[in-house]
Amino acid sequence: MSEYPPPAFEFPDPLALERVHQGFAAQQVMQLINARLVDVAPGLVQIELDYQPALTQQHGYLHAGILSTLVDSACGFAAFSLMPAGCQVLSVEFKVNFMSPARGQKFLASGRVLKPGRTLMVCSGEVHAFQDGVWTPVALMQATMMSLPGDVIQGTSE
Amino acid sequence: MSEYPPPAFEFPDPLALERVHQGFAAQQVMQLINARLVDVAPGLVQIELDYQPALTQQHGYLHAGILSTLVDSACGFAAFSLMPAGCQVLSVEFKVNFMSPARGQKFLASGRVLKPGRTLMVCSGEVHAFQDGVWTPVALMQATMMSLPGDVIQGTSE
Amino acid sequence: MSEYPPPAFEFPDPLALERVHQGFAAQQVMQLINARLVDVAPGLVQIELDYQPALTQQHGYLHAGILSTLVDSACGFAAFSLMPAGCQVLSVEFKVNFMSPARGQKFLASGRVLKPGRTLMVCSGEVHAFQDGVWTPVALMQATMMSLPGDVIQGTSE
Amino acid sequence: MSEYPPPAFEFPDPLALERVHQGFAAQQVMQLINARLVDVAPGLVQIELDYQPALTQQHGYLHAGILSTLVDSACGFAAFSLMPAGCQVLSVEFKVNFMSPARGQKFLASGRVLKPGRTLMVCSGEVHAFQDGVWTPVALMQATMMSLPGDVIQGTSE
Repeated sequence: MSEYPPPAFEFPDPLALERVHQGFAAQQVMQLINARLVDVAPGLVQIELDYQPALTQQHGYLHAGILSTLVDSACGFAAFSLMPAGCQVLSVEFKVNFMSPARGQKFLASGRVLKPGRTLMVCSGEVHAFQDGVWTPVALMQATMMSLPGDVIQGTSE
Repeated sequence: MSEYPPPAFEFPDPLALERVHQGFAAQQVMQLINARLVDVAPGLVQIELDYQPALTQQHGYLHAGILSTLVDSACGFAAFSLMPAGCQVLSVEFKVNFMSPARGQKFLASGRVLKPGRTLMVCSGEVHAFQDGVWTPVALMQATMMSLPGDVIQGTSE
Repeated sequence: MSEYPPPAFEFPDPLALERVHQGFAAQQVMQLINARLVDVAPGLVQIELDYQPALTQQHGYLHAGILSTLVDSACGFAAFSLMPAGCQVLSVEFKVNFMSPARGQKFLASGRVLKPGRTLMVCSGEVHAFQDGVWTPVALMQATMMSLPGDVIQGTSE
Repeated sequence: MSEYPPPAFEFPDPLALERVHQGFAAQQVMQLINARLVDVAPGLVQIELDYQPALTQQHGYLHAGILSTLVDSACGFAAFSLMPAGCQVLSVEFKVNFMSPARGQKFLASGRVLKPGRTLMVCSGEVHAFQDGVWTPVALMQATMMSLPGDVIQGTSE
């Protein structure tokens, strides 16, 4: 017994990849912080961000909330990539540990689905900071995403 | 037994209020999202934000990460308000439940210290959305903040 | 804006109180640790436990997992009390902060529903320890409970 | 960028292995539930448990709190294995997602240190259930452990 084996997921419909890219483009906050969608695979999404002073807290590091924004989107779209057409994704809840100060030239958030369910998906996410040629993990997320059928969003607890 | 009694905290030094305002002003991300520090009491901080399309996810609601940014700062500064001079505050970890879609004209994040410790402080936070005269809770946070002596930030796990 | 107002919940069916007592009696682990169901109101459940050396960790305090067991059941049955007949309750996830060492003569776990939804319910829980006439909060939980229709349990993510 | 590389930890003192075994033996609750310490490596601990009706919730599965007890001890001792002599370990907080019903003939909890710090350690844990020859992940934990110098335990937030 050691690690979760890399789950061999497949996109549930041929347009899943396109739907993830459309969803990402529709998140205006991703444009505000200049985040880039760099990888989408079934159940796995990566988002990149360059360091920007406008995103910092009082010590000059990336604000914990911005790290959370990045990796929440990574986990959310990872879950979305495994949902059938016609579904929406919502964040039910997440927990983040901040392991090192978020300093670096750029940041990479990875979100992956660990347990896909019809209604709920358990995801794991992480943010690494790149500085002077080295990647360092700075944040670790454990999240629950929800699949909502239809176009009307009612909220996770309705 | 019912609720936590409202803790009767006091500012540990006369400059605590000023230090919180300075810290908030130094968080550049608060300016990026146009957040306002509206209340600071010992162990309690409130931050307000107007709805802005630039902060939304794909359904037009505030992104879960932006809600987290707001309430993380509220909890962090609530903890900071109870720390002695010469300390820095860092977010160790937090968990957020998203209870309703974050729609509304404005949003109010409240952070309060439930258990102040010398090194760690347990905080509770919430975000309410205001729409058509009604405040609705949209996010609930349970967080751990850390007090670090000195000016050099080493990270929560160093 | 200060606290969540005490929600004015009502039992959804006349047998809710009885269903909670039956569910508690059916949790064999509650008997193993000698826990007592002491209060059930709509969306609020309290469970009591006397100190027992058999439940301790290496320092003689109650094990964090036992505190979690108590308050998870309190939150779970609080959620269950608001579900219609024919539903089962499952814990989706929870987060617990341990605020003080769990020493005392007895312990009281309280679970309450903050946001009842048709599928998911957000709950808040706490454990207080009683020692020498004083109640001290020792653990704080934020949890998500799920309502599953029918008798067959499929798991939270299926 | 993919996974956390397996960290190459070493025991900080020659007696670390013995200290973990002593600590486990001193947790009386481990004996109550008949848990077995099956593996200790630097920063990694595994604990096993057979199915027992006395540990179940109302559907006959292992109670979420018992899963938490197991994996909290696994994470706690994983952290403890990396602490210098003379330190105690305490759980600051943890979050657990329950991914599948905890049914099976036996259960294996694994705890590993992802980020060791002098004061705080971030750990990841999981519980797998074994049934009919197959291991299934049933619970996932993300935890913060604290190193306290000396023999007197003051609590995580004092």
